[in-house]
Amino acid sequence: MKKQLGPKDILFPIPAALIVTGTFEKPNIITVSWIGMMSISPPILAIGVHESRYSFELIKKYKEFTANIPPVDKYKEVDYIGMVSGRDRNKFEDVGFSPLKSSNITTPIIAECPLNLECKVVNSLRLSGHTAIFGEILETHIDGDKISGGSPCDIDLGKINPLIYAATVGQYWSIGKKISESFKPGLQIKEGLL
Amino acid sequence: MKKQLGPKDILFPIPAALIVTGTFEKPNIITVSWIGMMSISPPILAIGVHESRYSFELIKKYKEFTANIPPVDKYKEVDYIGMVSGRDRNKFEDVGFSPLKSSNITTPIIAECPLNLECKVVNSLRLSGHTAIFGEILETHIDGDKISGGSPCDIDLGKINPLIYAATVGQYWSIGKKISESFKPGLQIKEGLL
Repeated sequence: MKKQLGPKDILFPIPAALIVTGTFEKPNIITVSWIGMMSISPPILAIGVHESRYSFELIKKYKEFTANIPPVDKYKEVDYIGMVSGRDRNKFEDVGFSPLKSSNITTPIIAECPLNLECKVVNSLRLSGHTAIFGEILETHIDGDKISGGSPCDIDLGKINPLIYAATVGQYWSIGKKISESFKPGLQIKEGLL
Repeated sequence: MKKQLGPKDILFPIPAALIVTGTFEKPNIITVSWIGMMSISPPILAIGVHESRYSFELIKKYKEFTANIPPVDKYKEVDYIGMVSGRDRNKFEDVGFSPLKSSNITTPIIAECPLNLECKVVNSLRLSGHTAIFGEILETHIDGDKISGGSPCDIDLGKINPLIYAATVGQYWSIGKKISESFKPGLQIKEGLL
């Protein structure tokens, strides 16, 4: 039987992404789980950021950001980054993260995160307090030891071991095991029907 | 060392969400991993749907959809639903899923998915072939046996066992184990610094 919880912001699994804003010399980080890919050609993702956040100001000013996927063992750092404002603290220093230069934009990526996406803001849409900010992905960085070849398909998700966030429930989880390749198991059903 | 993969649509973990469109009498389903929460008050999520899809037509016509999170053991059904068009097939019948009436909209939810979000389209933004469609969540349904109390925080994510999709890598994964509550482990860092 279904229970009704009212209109809630419940969605999982989602990343606990670290969004870097600002410049290489003065970068800031926020934890953002309101993130989703929205388009493929070109690849564009959207993040939902509240207009009261310091990072909102920085994104508005520089029109760029990086999205960084942290590994599960950085959950304390991720949690801390979501607790304090970059107006008051240098969060890179606080958690001991290292900014690395991006290839196409001024805003750095985070060395300690195995997957990093450089984004240029291409659009935005004000919703209520939050604004959906659309970033075109200009470059994708991955730790060399997390990939067995040169193709994106060669990424070993088990080695990336991304931190998972369960919104509303308020919990961090790890990833489990590989179940299947995609575009294969559905063929069994398709072949049985057609 | 970082490797560069070029501009790629790599983001994980993300849900392999099942989006239902159309009416209770004639519903359709598509598999959509381009999904993200964007706002809290009111809760609004965005999905990226290609304008060539049959579901795009249906969303345009009815201005509503439901987002349904499938459990890991339905990965074959999820994969199949991403393979064929609702123009040609009744995918509810093909995979043996049951539509359930929504509380606020015409489009049904999927009985076999433990989490279901009823959405009314409140905005959209054309990107390239894909359009980001914003849905305000009007009601949240959850299987009663996946929740220990009446609060959203009582959801047992292990019992939900949501299917995880790794875009670009093209793999389905399961969820692992609970690492921590949020807004707690960061306090240790905060208290050490301030």
